[in-house]
This record gives sequence, structure tokens and C-alpha cells, in this order.
Amino acid sequence: MPEVRVEEVQRFMEESLVAGGAPLPEAQAHAALLLHADLVGHFSHGLNRLELYVNDMKNGVCDAKAKPVILKESESTAWVDGCNSLGATTASFCMDIAIRKAKEYGVGWVAAKRCNHFGMAGYWAIKAERHGLIGMAYTNSAPIMVPTRAKNSSNGTNPISMACPAAGGDSLVVDMATTAAAMGKVEVQIKKGEKIPEGWALGPDYKPTTDPQVAFDSSRLMPLGGPEETSGYKGYALSTMVEVFCSGLSGASPTHKVPMWTYTQQDPPNLGQCFVAVDPQRFAPGFGHRVKECLDHYRSMEPIDPSLPVLVPGDKEKQNQESSRLRGTIVYPQGQIDTYMKLAQRIGVKPLQVLD
Amino acid sequence: MPEVRVEEVQRFMEESLVAGGAPLPEAQAHAALLLHADLVGHFSHGLNRLELYVNDMKNGVCDAKAKPVILKESESTAWVDGCNSLGATTASFCMDIAIRKAKEYGVGWVAAKRCNHFGMAGYWAIKAERHGLIGMAYTNSAPIMVPTRAKNSSNGTNPISMACPAAGGDSLVVDMATTAAAMGKVEVQIKKGEKIPEGWALGPDYKPTTDPQVAFDSSRLMPLGGPEETSGYKGYALSTMVEVFCSGLSGASPTHKVPMWTYTQQDPPNLGQCFVAVDPQRFAPGFGHRVKECLDHYRSMEPIDPSLPVLVPGDKEKQNQESSRLRGTIVYPQGQIDTYMKLAQRIGVKPLQVLD
Ligand SMILES: NC(=O)c1ccc[n+]([C@@H]2O[C@H](COP(=O)([O-])OP(=O)(O)OC[C@H]3O[C@@H](n4cnc5c(N)ncnc54)[C@H](O)[C@@H]3O)[C@@H](O)[C@H]2O)c1
Ligand SMILES: NC(=O)c1ccc[n+]([C@@H]2O[C@H](COP(=O)([O-])OP(=O)(O)OC[C@H]3O[C@@H](n4cnc5c(N)ncnc54)[C@H](O)[C@@H]3O)[C@@H](O)[C@H]2O)c1
Repeated sequence: MPEVRVEEVQRFMEESLVAGGAPLPEAQAHAALLLHADLVGHFSHGLNRLELYVNDMKNGVCDAKAKPVILKESESTAWVDGCNSLGATTASFCMDIAIRKAKEYGVGWVAAKRCNHFGMAGYWAIKAERHGLIGMAYTNSAPIMVPTRAKNSSNGTNPISMACPAAGGDSLVVDMATTAAAMGKVEVQIKKGEKIPEGWALGPDYKPTTDPQVAFDSSRLMPLGGPEETSGYKGYALSTMVEVFCSGLSGASPTHKVPMWTYTQQDPPNLGQCFVAVDPQRFAPGFGHRVKECLDHYRSMEPIDPSLPVLVPGDKEKQNQESSRLRGTIVYPQGQIDTYMKLAQRIGVKPLQVLD
Repeated sequence: MPEVRVEEVQRFMEESLVAGGAPLPEAQAHAALLLHADLVGHFSHGLNRLELYVNDMKNGVCDAKAKPVILKESESTAWVDGCNSLGATTASFCMDIAIRKAKEYGVGWVAAKRCNHFGMAGYWAIKAERHGLIGMAYTNSAPIMVPTRAKNSSNGTNPISMACPAAGGDSLVVDMATTAAAMGKVEVQIKKGEKIPEGWALGPDYKPTTDPQVAFDSSRLMPLGGPEETSGYKGYALSTMVEVFCSGLSGASPTHKVPMWTYTQQDPPNLGQCFVAVDPQRFAPGFGHRVKECLDHYRSMEPIDPSLPVLVPGDKEKQNQESSRLRGTIVYPQGQIDTYMKLAQRIGVKPLQVLD
């Protein structure tokens, strides 16, 4: 499969976003967000989505020149209007406020309306973790989760993320959609020609399906936990919690009114997002060592299959990131490269340079 | 099955806790916590556990006369030593601080060490919800969850709870163990002589079991999501997040060092607990109406089975509470009544008066 140097991916994404209408600093920040997803192996949230962001700018759905503003503020809280700016612009603005407030008052809790897609939620949580804080980021999204017992979708994959530092440069990174699986994973199974496990999605007959194409077309992802008897209502419950943090606090659209994200979207999605930072130094001394002790404990547990060691949330992504770093390149499927050759031509940007 | 008047249950639990060594106000508060569990239908967390609490006091594991203290405090945070007092004593102390801080600074985030079991997490979240706030409560517990890929248990059922008000007196109450099912539900299946669904627990051979007795003896509950292919690692990830909030911040024991809760326990469990309150009034106006609009939307969705309407998290418990209120009584299995007749005799308390 085609390989592209990491710097070249960043260059191409930056220039494409600038061609779409973003100022350079905003384009750089947003490209770094997408690049991170490819580096850690969440390809659905990287280059794969660049064209959607470019189109959103061209269609006026996203105003990349807009600057988010604080509408209301108190010691530990802020309400922000994202002004439909790029996902990374608003998220970075909000998490910086949360970090500042956590350092000053112990906790920062920021909710924003009129947001665009901010990619991997965990990327924003990690921003706070780098400051020695517990970081959390949440977003609502388009309706592709079926609530337990319902026929149709109304909730989002509404991710929950939490990152915190541990001693010795270690960290814990929880970053997860509240559905059993993200739609990106269903698409991967379509491409592989393999079935999906029961418990990921319902078909148009409202019964669990193992056919990924049926699942994709039906757009009815099951909440984490699957059917009611294995507590799928808990994944649904978590998505309603994220909804409260995101649209409830900020006044953004609730997920059931968010339009699906398409290449021809005309209206801003008015997503709601929430960013939290907490300073562990305000509590018992030794936080980092205690977290580290837990992480080491989990990793040292005896695995059922010796070839599949017990992982800590975030380990998979760190391992992928380390291999990308060592290789210095990212590998993409040929189809994706072809798509972006066409995009380059359409928006007048130097095409991605693929290594021979 | 035997029926007992609600006031009589409260009377009996209060007097038993006083006989165990609790001062009256602490006994009343703790009895109200347990009564709530029976009223809403979570019988595992009500009268069922009274004997454990009484024994904990008698064994010196719990010091019901102790008063929790604040060890460190800033605008939005507090670190508390629960001093091994009764679960309700520490939880109420901590949530009151979180509520006060949320009203003053927008958010209150409180972590406590040296705690005892605080029953239903949601009971404490609801305490903040009654003040018009978003309330959250978390606790770690004893190791009965197997991390994904591991042979043995090391994590807790570590519950997540979030309650918030909605317009017209409505509310959303998410209150859930991060395992697929609580051990109490496994016990119910043993009593019914029915199988458990695949995805709840592993047997001693590390394979999913459908035999509730095997699951009970094995003490290996699967995280929410079940096996790895249906994202069971997400339930495991959520339990590590709760661990960070609870033992990480407070300096309490991590779950993998917490002793199992038994009738003969000798050492305080040193649980960690975390209580959060957020004031929605610091954000966009109209919070309660937006949440209500979502709840109404979910409840009005077309169900797959017309006899099983789509529920909002918290609805089941409210329906049970309403039936208990109308009936004025609680129904217990005969075995439980027998147990408490013996306890009454042992600790010298007037026995539970069962209705004819
Ligand atoms: N912006 C949006 O609208 C949106 C919506 C949904 C998801 N997302 C993002 O998509 C990305 C992928 O989400 P996902 O739900 O598919 O993630 P995932 O299922 O791949 O991973 C979820 C979490 O589990 C951890 N994990 C994976 N395997 C593990 C194991 N064996 N043991 C322990 N931990 C393990 C991961 O490190 C991660 O923290 C996330 O970054 C998420 O934020 C974004
Ligand atoms: N103190 C402790 O150590 C500890 C440990 C674990 C659990 N607990 C408590 O045990 C209690 C039971 O936990 P659980 O995990 O068995 O709860 P559960 O599975 O019965 O319910 C979890 C949540 O899902 C909601 N729900 C249930 N069915 C639903 C449906 N069809 N649609 C929408 N929502 C639905 C409930 O209202 C609740 O909010 C909780 O109060 C929890 O806090 C305490």
C-alpha cells in the first residue's frame, strides 16, 4: 500500500485547508489534529475526513476565519460560541480556558455551541494531560445510535474521553464512542469482506445484523452493551449524559436534530462540545504515582492468550504512534490516495507525494 | 411474599444501625439511603445490605461516630478524609461541599479517601439535582471485574452516576455499574433457576459462562460491552476512569487492593469516592427545557415491541418508586425476612413487623 512521509501529510492537509479558506495558523492546528488520528491508527478521523472539512468551508457550513467568543464566564465555568469555526479552532480555544481555570480554581468546565466536528475527542483531553491535569472532552454528533427498544436512531456516537498523567511520563487515555463500535469499523469490515459481530448494529428489520453493508445502510448502531439483556441501555444512558454536557449546557442542537455529515451539507451542524480540566494537585499528594501503580498492575496481569497482553486504555494508540514515528511515514489504502489526488486537482493544491 | 410498611422498614433499619453503634442522625441518613434502594427496586442495595453495615460497625471496620474532615480545599475542589464513617455520612458531607462550591464558583469537585460503601451512586447525584445542579457520584469497590484479555479480576463494578433536572419536575438519572451486570443480578438468576446471558461473566476457565452459580463462584464479571470484539474494553476503560477520580485523586486504596466485602471483614476498605456538582445556570439559558425536549423525544420514539416503550435513564426507578408510594409497602422474599428476624434477635432490636 502507498506510503507517505508524515511531514508531507501535514503539508498536504494544511495547504488543502488553506485552499478551502482557512487562515494558516488555523489550518496548521486542524491538520495536526487529523494527522494525530492517522499516527495513532484511527484512520477514520484523519486524512479520510479532510475533504469533508474542505467542503464544509467551501459550502459556508464552516467559517474558518471566525474566532470563538466567551458568552458568559465565572470562576470555574465558561460558555462559548464556537461561531462555526473549524473544529480545532474552537476545541483548542475552549480547552485552553478549561486549563487556565483548572490551574487557577481547581476545575475548568467549558461548554460550546455552534461547533463543527473536532475529530478525536481524546486529542483534546490529552492537551490538558500535557499540563499535568485530568482532561475530558465530549461532543454530540449526528443521530446514528438506536436507543434501547427504539426502532430508529436518535442519539449520537457521542464520545467520552478522559486523559490523565501518570509518573514517569506514562498516561491513561480513555477515548471511546458510546456505541458498541464506530461506523468507521463497520466500513472496515465491508472493505475486508468480513462479517460484523452481533451487537454492533440493527438492520432495517430492527434485528441485530452481522452484514456490515446492511448495518451501514441501516444507520442503526447499537449502544455500548448491545441488546437490552447485556445492558445496552447503559451505552444509551452514557450518550444521554454526553448530550446533557454538550447541547444541554451550551444551547447547541440536540443530536436528534443534527444533520448527517455529508459532502453537500448546507447548514452548520451547530454541534455542542464540552471540555473539562481538573487539577490533581488540589487533592492527595502522589496522584501520578498512584495512577502509575494501577497502570503497571493492569499491564502485568496474566493474559488468557499469551500473545494478547492486557492493555491499558491508550496503549494501542501509543504503540501505533511509536511505529509511525520510527517509520516516519503513514500507509494509506490506494483508494484514499486516489480520492485526494482528485481533491488536489479540484482545489489547486500540490498533490500528496507518495513514496515509491 | 411478605409485605412491610415503608415506615416500618425505615424504623427497623434506623434502630439496627443505632444498635450497631451509629448516632441517631447518622443512622437515619443511612437508613434513608438503603430505603431508597428498596423503593426504586434495587433490592441488592437496600435492606439486603443492612447486616453488612451493622457488622462493619461491630467489627470496627466502620466508625459511625467519626466525622469526615476536609484535608485541603480550593475554590472548586476539596479533598476529604471520610474517617471510615458510615457511607451516607461521608457521601452527604462531600456532596454538600460540591453543591456549595457549584453555587459559588460554578463547579464543585470533591474526592474522599477512607470511605465505606455508599450504596446507590445515583442517590448522591440526585442530591445535587434537587438543587437544580448536575450531580455526579463515583466510587471504587472490590475487585470483581476482569479487564479485557486478563484471567483474573482486578477492577470494580465502579459505578458512574449523573443526575440533572429537566423542566416540569422531570429529570435524567444515569446510574450504572461499569460491568455488564451487577453481581446482584447474577444472584437473582440463581434464585430464579435461570441462565445468565453470555457476556455477563467468565467462568474459572476464563470463558463466558451462562450458569449463574458458576459466574457467582468465579467472581469474574465482564466489563460493559462483554468480550473484546463487542468493545468490552470500553467498560474496562470506564472503570479505570472511575478509579482515577476515586482512588487516584483521594489516596484511597486502588480497587485491586480492596478486600471483598464480607460478614467478617476486619480492616476498613479505604474506598475512594468522588462527588461533582455543576451549575447549569452558568451556561446557556434554558437548560431544563432543552433537557426536557430530549427526554420527551426519547420517550415518544416508536418502540420495536409496543409493550416495551422506550425509556429514559431513571424512568424504571421512578416507576418503581411511584408504585411503592401508592402501595405504602415493600415486598421482600421470605428468606430475607428470616435473616433479619435473626439479626433483630442478635442485636436486640424490635423485629420487622410484617403485614398479614
Ligand atoms: N467527533 C466525533 O463526533 C466522534 C464520534 C465518535 C467517535 N469519535 C472518535 O473516534 C475515535 C475512535 O472511537 P472508538 O470508540 O472506535 O475507539 P476504540 O474502540 O478503538 O477505543 C476505545 C478506547 O479503548 C481503548 N482500548 C482499545 N482496546 C483496548 C484493550 N484491549 N484494552 C484496554 N483498552 C483498550 C482505546 O485505547 C481507547 O481509549 C475516538 O478518538 C473518538 O473520540 C469521534
Ligand atoms: N456502591 C457500590 O459499590 C456500587 C457498585 C456497583 C453498583 N452500585 C449501584 O447499583 C445500582 C444498580 O446498578 P446497575 O448497573 O445494575 O443498574 P441498572 O443496570 O439496573 O441500570 C443502569 C441505568 O440504566 C437505566 N436503564 C435501565 N433500563 C433502561 C432502559 N430500558 N432504557 C433506558 N435506561 C435504562 C437505569 O435507569 C439506570 O440509570 C446502581 O444504583 C449503582 O450505583 C453500587
